[in-house]
Amino acid sequence: MSINTRDYMVPEGKSIEIDSLPTKYDGNLEREEGLELFNELLLKLRDLQELLYADSSKSLLVVLQAMDAAGKDSTIRNVFGPINPQGCKVVSFKGPNSVELAHDFLWRIHQNVPRKGHIGVFNRSHYEDVLIVKVRELAPKETITQRYNHINAFESMLHDEGTRIIKFFLHISKDYQKVKLQRRLDNPDKLWKFCPSDVQERTRWEDYQKAYEAVFEKCSTEKNPWYIVPAERKWFRNLLVAKVMVETLESMDLKYPTAQFDPKTIVIP
Amino acid sequence: MSINTRDYMVPEGKSIEIDSLPTKYDGNLEREEGLELFNELLLKLRDLQELLYADSSKSLLVVLQAMDAAGKDSTIRNVFGPINPQGCKVVSFKGPNSVELAHDFLWRIHQNVPRKGHIGVFNRSHYEDVLIVKVRELAPKETITQRYNHINAFESMLHDEGTRIIKFFLHISKDYQKVKLQRRLDNPDKLWKFCPSDVQERTRWEDYQKAYEAVFEKCSTEKNPWYIVPAERKWFRNLLVAKVMVETLESMDLKYPTAQFDPKTIVIP
Repeated sequence: MSINTRDYMVPEGKSIEIDSLPTKYDGNLEREEGLELFNELLLKLRDLQELLYADSSKSLLVVLQAMDAAGKDSTIRNVFGPINPQGCKVVSFKGPNSVELAHDFLWRIHQNVPRKGHIGVFNRSHYEDVLIVKVRELAPKETITQRYNHINAFESMLHDEGTRIIKFFLHISKDYQKVKLQRRLDNPDKLWKFCPSDVQERTRWEDYQKAYEAVFEKCSTEKNPWYIVPAERKWFRNLLVAKVMVETLESMDLKYPTAQFDPKTIVIP
Repeated sequence: MSINTRDYMVPEGKSIEIDSLPTKYDGNLEREEGLELFNELLLKLRDLQELLYADSSKSLLVVLQAMDAAGKDSTIRNVFGPINPQGCKVVSFKGPNSVELAHDFLWRIHQNVPRKGHIGVFNRSHYEDVLIVKVRELAPKETITQRYNHINAFESMLHDEGTRIIKFFLHISKDYQKVKLQRRLDNPDKLWKFCPSDVQERTRWEDYQKAYEAVFEKCSTEKNPWYIVPAERKWFRNLLVAKVMVETLESMDLKYPTAQFDPKTIVIP
C-alpha cells in the first residue's frame, strides 16, 4: 500500500496550519482499491486485538476529536465495530456533570482509561478542556496554558505504565460541515443528532481551528502522536485510522503468554 | 507557639538523612502545654473545614506514610476524628487488587482524590509504588525512576486544578517499632493489627529508610511538600500535623460565597 501514515502524523513541537492540510483526499487510491485494503486491515486488526487481549500486559487508547458532524460516530462504527467488544470499550465524553466538575479535568478521563489487554476509544476527551473550554473561556487563560503540560504528563505516565495512545483529528472543511448539518435537519432519521448549539459552535469555527492548532503543536509527541485525518472521503478516513491502529499494535511487541504447563501432560478427563 | 512548621518541611530538591532527624521530640514544650495548643488548633481546624466546605472551589489532600506501627491510625483518629465527616473522607490503600493492577499505579489514587470543598486523607498512597514496590523489586528499576516524575506531575496537576496536598511521614526508630509490634502480640485487643509479614518488612528497615529518603529528595516540592514528623511523642505528632493543616488551610484564600440574593428581602412563609 502506498499510504505512509507518518505523512499524517504531527511531528513533535511542529506548528501546523490546519487550513493548508487537505480535508478531502484519497491517497492516490481508487475507492475500490481502498475498500479492499481496508478489509485486509480489519482482519489484521482483529488478530492483533486478540493478541493484545491474550498478552494482557499493555493497552491501547484511541482518542477521537473533531468538529461536529465530521464523522466520529461513523468512524467508530466502521473501524471499531468489527472488533470483539469484550476487549474494546467506547467512552463518549459529553459536557461534565456536577460530580465531574467538582474534580480536576482529568479525573473522569483517568477512570475510563482501558485496562491492560483492552482497547479504549474516547469519543471526545480531555482535549475538550483546552478546546471548547478555551474557545468559550470557561476557565482562566493561565489554567488552559497549564493544561497542555498536564495533559502531556498524564499521557506520558500512561505510556510508561503500558498504555499506548493514538490521537486522531478528523479534518473537514466548514463547507462540508454545513452540508452535513443541513442533512441532519432535512432527514427525520438524522434529526436526533442535531443540536441547536451546534450552530453556535460553528460560528466560532476559526477559534476552534486555532485551538486545535495549539493542541497539535503542544500535545503531539513522538510517544503519543496526533494524526490529522482528511475525513471527507469516508473510505479513506477509515483506511487511514485502521492502518495507524494496525501499525501501532504491531509495534507494541505483544506476545501470546507462554504456558506454565506442558499441554501434552494434560489429560481432559 | 514556638513551633515553626517549616523546620519539619523537606525543602525542594534537598537530600535528607532520615537517621539524623529526631523521632522523639517535644518542640521544647511541656506535654500539658502541647495538649492545650492542640485543642485550640482543633477548634480552628473545624472552622476552617467548614469554610473549605462552604467555599467549595478547592480541596485538601493529606497523605500519611510511615513504617508499620508508627501511628498512622492513631493520628487519623486524633486529628481527623473531630472533623465533620460529611466533608472529610479517609481512604486506606492496601495491596492493589486485580482490577487495580490492570491499570497504571495512579488509577486507583486519582479516583479517590477529594472533591472540591472536601478534605481527603490517604492512609498509605501512591508512594507505596516507589516504596514497597522498590524495596521488594515488584517493578523494573526504570519504571520506579520514571514514577517519581509521574508522581510530581500528577500532584502538580492536582495543585493547579485546585487541590492542595500535604504529605506527612511519621518518623519512628527501629527500636520503637519493636516495642509497638511486641505490644500488639502481647495484647489480645491489639493482635488483629499484627500481620506476620510486618516482621518481614522490618528486616528490610534500612532499605525502606533509603526508599523514603529518595521520595523526600525527589517528591518534596514547594507546592506539594513533605513533612517529617517526629512521631514517638503522640501529643507532639498530633500537634504538628494539626498545625500544618491549619496553616495550609489558612493560606488557601478561602471565602464564604457571597449570596446571590439580599437576605433582607426573603420572607420565610
